[in-house]
Amino acid sequence: MPHAIVEWTDNLEKDGFQVRGLLQLINAEMRAAGDAFPTGGIRVRAIKLTDYVVADGEDDYAFVNITFKIGKGRSEDFKKEFFTALFERVKAYFAEIYARRYLALSLYFEELESPNWKQNNIHAKFKKAN
Amino acid sequence: MPHAIVEWTDNLEKDGFQVRGLLQLINAEMRAAGDAFPTGGIRVRAIKLTDYVVADGEDDYAFVNITFKIGKGRSEDFKKEFFTALFERVKAYFAEIYARRYLALSLYFEELESPNWKQNNIHAKFKKAN
Amino acid sequence: MPHAIVEWTDNLEKDGFQVRGLLQLINAEMRAAGDAFPTGGIRVRAIKLTDYVVADGEDDYAFVNITFKIGKGRSEDFKKEFFTALFERVKAYFAEIYARRYLALSLYFEELESPNWKQNNIHAKFKKAN
Repeated sequence: MPHAIVEWTDNLEKDGFQVRGLLQLINAEMRAAGDAFPTGGIRVRAIKLTDYVVADGEDDYAFVNITFKIGKGRSEDFKKEFFTALFERVKAYFAEIYARRYLALSLYFEELESPNWKQNNIHAKFKKAN
Repeated sequence: MPHAIVEWTDNLEKDGFQVRGLLQLINAEMRAAGDAFPTGGIRVRAIKLTDYVVADGEDDYAFVNITFKIGKGRSEDFKKEFFTALFERVKAYFAEIYARRYLALSLYFEELESPNWKQNNIHAKFKKAN
Repeated sequence: MPHAIVEWTDNLEKDGFQVRGLLQLINAEMRAAGDAFPTGGIRVRAIKLTDYVVADGEDDYAFVNITFKIGKGRSEDFKKEFFTALFERVKAYFAEIYARRYLALSLYFEELESPNWKQNNIHAKFKKAN
């Protein structure tokens, strides 16, 4: 952990939305949170949705839904501050698109027990750098 | 919220399955539940599976798995009635296909805390309409 | 249930990773666990990720994340033994790739209430076989 999953409807493509920019924004916010999220464990990815029926299905509605899966143990204050600041960045990222089309943005997080089952040779790169 | 996610195996395509019809059915059931699910928050989408190994992997098995993510606060009675009625509709939708091939249908729901982090200009359209 | 979902980054393709082999490995382990997982309910699938930013996003990092969704009721001992043995198999499957590139492997499980809403004509095949 941590994991972040961005689901987005593909009708945003014609608005010029570039998913990679959003993934980089989320990734950068996580790395900027000091030691809260070890860099070697950050895994941000997107799922592009091509089939969806939003609201009454009668108009060109779009949505972006971000789900975080993080380990337990972070304080309520940290989580509230971190996700609030992140979501402000996400809203800013979409501000122009949001001003001219139907769009629902949402962000959730789940806290999971850290698994006993993991193997990761990315961490070592960032530990060496310290 | 609410969110619904339909995972389906792509071997159903040759049986004439049209995912959009299923998404519309789910969407319509949610809107028909009175004020239980605000229309502007309904987000139903599908994920088409192209790689899967079902049961013993030796035959042409298919599955459709529906996961709902809804906010907390609805009564046990409402949830039981709503999902039971919806699943009856889903079974009816697949009745012909189910009668002639291997198929597993399933429906789950999760209840999440409503997030502090959301921005949605679709709701306004449906509030104006009232 | 049970369900298993394998998310994998598509940069593993150039390393010769074949997702179907991994799905078959997971499926076989589940079937080898005696009566713990009824064969007719096993649904293992993959989601191929094409957009992701891992770690600092500056190198060719890969990950594979496996999520199990199983019904409640299995003992802590069983779960620990089963998932530990399975993850050893997964690590062995990736050993050659892991030795020569950045890769994070992880495995989680969630326990869900068995839903009231399911219909499955695959089970009958395996009950007949007994």
